[in-house]
Amino acid sequence: MGKNDDSDIIEHHVEEEMEKKCARSHAASSSYFESVTPSEREGQSNTQSSHRLLAYSDALISIIATVMILPVAHTKVKDNEELKESVQILLTTKIAVYLMTFLIVSVAWGAHIRLFQVIVHIDDCLALLNLACMMLITFLPYTFSLMATFPEHILGILLFCGCVMVIGVIQSVVVLYAFSRPFLLSEQIQISENQTFYKQHILKVIMRVPIMCFLASIFSFIFFQLSYVLLAIVIFLPYVSQGLKWCRSKAVGQVEETPDSMMFYTYLPNQPLSKERVEAFSDGVYAIVATLLILDICEDNVPDPTVVQRQYGGSLIAALQDYGPEYLAYFGSFATVGLLWFVHHSLFLHVTKATRFMGLLNTFSLAFVGGLPLAYQLTQEFPRNSRNELEAIQISCVIIFFAGIFQLAIWVVALHSERETLHPYVWYGGREHVFMLAKLALYPCVALGTFFLTCCLSQFSASIFHLMEITVPFAFLVLRILVRIGLALLRLLFCPDQPDLRTVVEEEVDEMRAPFNALVT
Amino acid sequence: MGKNDDSDIIEHHVEEEMEKKCARSHAASSSYFESVTPSEREGQSNTQSSHRLLAYSDALISIIATVMILPVAHTKVKDNEELKESVQILLTTKIAVYLMTFLIVSVAWGAHIRLFQVIVHIDDCLALLNLACMMLITFLPYTFSLMATFPEHILGILLFCGCVMVIGVIQSVVVLYAFSRPFLLSEQIQISENQTFYKQHILKVIMRVPIMCFLASIFSFIFFQLSYVLLAIVIFLPYVSQGLKWCRSKAVGQVEETPDSMMFYTYLPNQPLSKERVEAFSDGVYAIVATLLILDICEDNVPDPTVVQRQYGGSLIAALQDYGPEYLAYFGSFATVGLLWFVHHSLFLHVTKATRFMGLLNTFSLAFVGGLPLAYQLTQEFPRNSRNELEAIQISCVIIFFAGIFQLAIWVVALHSERETLHPYVWYGGREHVFMLAKLALYPCVALGTFFLTCCLSQFSASIFHLMEITVPFAFLVLRILVRIGLALLRLLFCPDQPDLRTVVEEEVDEMRAPFNALVT
Repeated sequence: MGKNDDSDIIEHHVEEEMEKKCARSHAASSSYFESVTPSEREGQSNTQSSHRLLAYSDALISIIATVMILPVAHTKVKDNEELKESVQILLTTKIAVYLMTFLIVSVAWGAHIRLFQVIVHIDDCLALLNLACMMLITFLPYTFSLMATFPEHILGILLFCGCVMVIGVIQSVVVLYAFSRPFLLSEQIQISENQTFYKQHILKVIMRVPIMCFLASIFSFIFFQLSYVLLAIVIFLPYVSQGLKWCRSKAVGQVEETPDSMMFYTYLPNQPLSKERVEAFSDGVYAIVATLLILDICEDNVPDPTVVQRQYGGSLIAALQDYGPEYLAYFGSFATVGLLWFVHHSLFLHVTKATRFMGLLNTFSLAFVGGLPLAYQLTQEFPRNSRNELEAIQISCVIIFFAGIFQLAIWVVALHSERETLHPYVWYGGREHVFMLAKLALYPCVALGTFFLTCCLSQFSASIFHLMEITVPFAFLVLRILVRIGLALLRLLFCPDQPDLRTVVEEEVDEMRAPFNALVT
Repeated sequence: MGKNDDSDIIEHHVEEEMEKKCARSHAASSSYFESVTPSEREGQSNTQSSHRLLAYSDALISIIATVMILPVAHTKVKDNEELKESVQILLTTKIAVYLMTFLIVSVAWGAHIRLFQVIVHIDDCLALLNLACMMLITFLPYTFSLMATFPEHILGILLFCGCVMVIGVIQSVVVLYAFSRPFLLSEQIQISENQTFYKQHILKVIMRVPIMCFLASIFSFIFFQLSYVLLAIVIFLPYVSQGLKWCRSKAVGQVEETPDSMMFYTYLPNQPLSKERVEAFSDGVYAIVATLLILDICEDNVPDPTVVQRQYGGSLIAALQDYGPEYLAYFGSFATVGLLWFVHHSLFLHVTKATRFMGLLNTFSLAFVGGLPLAYQLTQEFPRNSRNELEAIQISCVIIFFAGIFQLAIWVVALHSERETLHPYVWYGGREHVFMLAKLALYPCVALGTFFLTCCLSQFSASIFHLMEITVPFAFLVLRILVRIGLALLRLLFCPDQPDLRTVVEEEVDEMRAPFNALVT
């Protein structure tokens, strides 16, 4: 450790360069291939890297998961009722549908990741099967809407179970197909001798959920409440049981050494998760949330020409001035979404290995991020200085707080096994550690502070809230300097032999200008 | 050429493996880094690969470009009027807004690609500046809505020009910032001696558009029609003039050898475009289009409990049966979107270098793909066997036809300089050439055929149309076999000395089973 680790980021960059050169020289000589006979090449002529298929699936799944917030956000909350009551009505159905969709779709996405960690190459047939699978996954939100609207009809349950069973069958076909063409599989399985064992193990894990759903659909004819319990168990039990097992093993301290073959394709919380796909999924969610905001602006805030003529005497500017708060709300909300993405980006830049548990926390964070369009709708809907407006701000603060606190939780979990999951720069005591903490803590702190401000100050308004949201980016820019100065002051107080404040600040400035040329040439 | 090229796909795969090994061994030894002094490393400690920032920007821009179809699709077309009239009313404003948004946003995306082909590393400050830029790009659709609704008010023009000017200023700041920290730039510029020349050239290109917009905003006070002309010129002139210049040089045959420095940061149609980003952008568009379909299903097709109770005597199944055509329309439309993505995926799998002109054609194709939610809305809205229904199907066919034909056009353009842009497998005469042509031609042919069917058969209905859409995937599965048999027949007729039909089919079957193990071990 130590010196070597310290240069990992740079190494990473230069490695990329080296790889490129490596690849180039390889392509130029291609001597390796002159030794391969044409018949050996045939096998792979139709196979393709699965990268783009996965990227498309990630985009699709993340948008599906998030877009269900639209029916929630577009429900008109009547202004004369108390906001709390309206929100409670919303909560019972639409928010439940949104959260359930988000969770279920995330679970399906997790299964998709697991599957395509085994199958690393695709061909046309697998691509089409995957599209069929995606079609059914995108249909799941509809079955949820039915369940939520008609909780006592079994049709919603049957439709949902039917979809899940068909998805299970398609995934089994994918597995069988891939194992019949071993060149599609990951290297680890290709070279292993007991492929049949792997195949059966994977099929067993995949078919577990459809079989439970089959039982649930049968029970629904007898006693439909039981079906709901069964479905909840299907989705959460693996996580809960594995989580408890993991916690116990951590608490007792004994690390059970499970054989390598059993560690494979499980729900263990420290099972690695493709970091690339977690990032792609998160990007999709952040992007669609940012877009839903402008969609609302474009649909609602273009005045009708006749109204402008009649009410404002043809003055468009006067008509648009009424929408002032909406614009402010838009820019404020966009800044919040953008900066939450920025924090997420900074965090995952220093994550070297994502685990399943971090993925779960990330899903929770994203579920709250997906709630931001609701916050946007609520904060710009009510008249100024009404009770409702304050409550809308409070709801926004709660949403932002949880979105931020789960990001922080990811980091805390990662710190728990920092040597495996984090880059040395952000280890406890690393040079970026405190700055990263400050970045991650900024949004929860601001949200919490604002929440308590709304309780004390009755003059607090949505406009002030949105102005605050817009000014947060500048906080990020000064944060770095502040953290540096703070650290320098601490050092000055406790270790006076260290370089003093001025040197540290100068160092910082120097660092920002240090040329990288020397390293490249 | 010949043998070496023939193994490029395989090479590519194995290269990846080699790269990994290369990287691994490199990381293990890291001897390269022991020679770098700590002070030299400092310079890059805060820089990051720009990959994820670009992926997020692509997602955001593609969704923004596409989502403007929602106001078009959600406009209620009254059933008693003739569809043509309603569509004409739509055309004048909302479809124009959608297409303009798509084009403008694509242009902004093109500029973004150009910029980040120069700046290959980022730091926190650049990430925040980029987010600010994104915020303004997402605001552009709103200024278009204003322009389209109030074409004679100058406010829309002023807002648009304002946004573009601020984006230009931010991009200039990005360039200045990046050139002040040369380790952020691409290697090519880092090692070049006249960085100042590059900087000025890039700034000149970037500032051209904002300056024209500034002029347009001044002219809008005098004679606002002129502003629109000016804006149109700003956006299309570079493409048109460069396209004409390129066509002329091709026609005359003389290839003007522009110096390397001038070839840089231009609008030349054969300028390379990051293939990765074209794919990411396309994935975003296809994903959001697929999602908008299910969003409509979830918002419109969950019956109200009271209605079910009153009209259907509490029978949910009876209530849902009314929505049968909608479900069919959903699955049909999803299959179409999915397969257009599949064709795009297959095409770009064999594209080795994307050019600016191919990017433009891709944008046109995507603009029509974005119109599919409108097609979905139209085809399921009208009563069976009405005149409107037939016209809705015709509009759908036109949309699908153009989406497909522009994909085909990309390939034709790529074939024009196949040695640079395409993989040898799909060159004229390559083993995948005919199959690729068949894949690309399938949708335009089916759409054209269906269009003429609707003209002849008055009994053609939307249900039949959607059933056709669902069966197309199976066409892809049999297409490969059909193409093979067709080719074999041709060979049998014209070159009887070639291997006969049975051998070819056996070859195909063999090929699908050939083990890849030998190559890996």
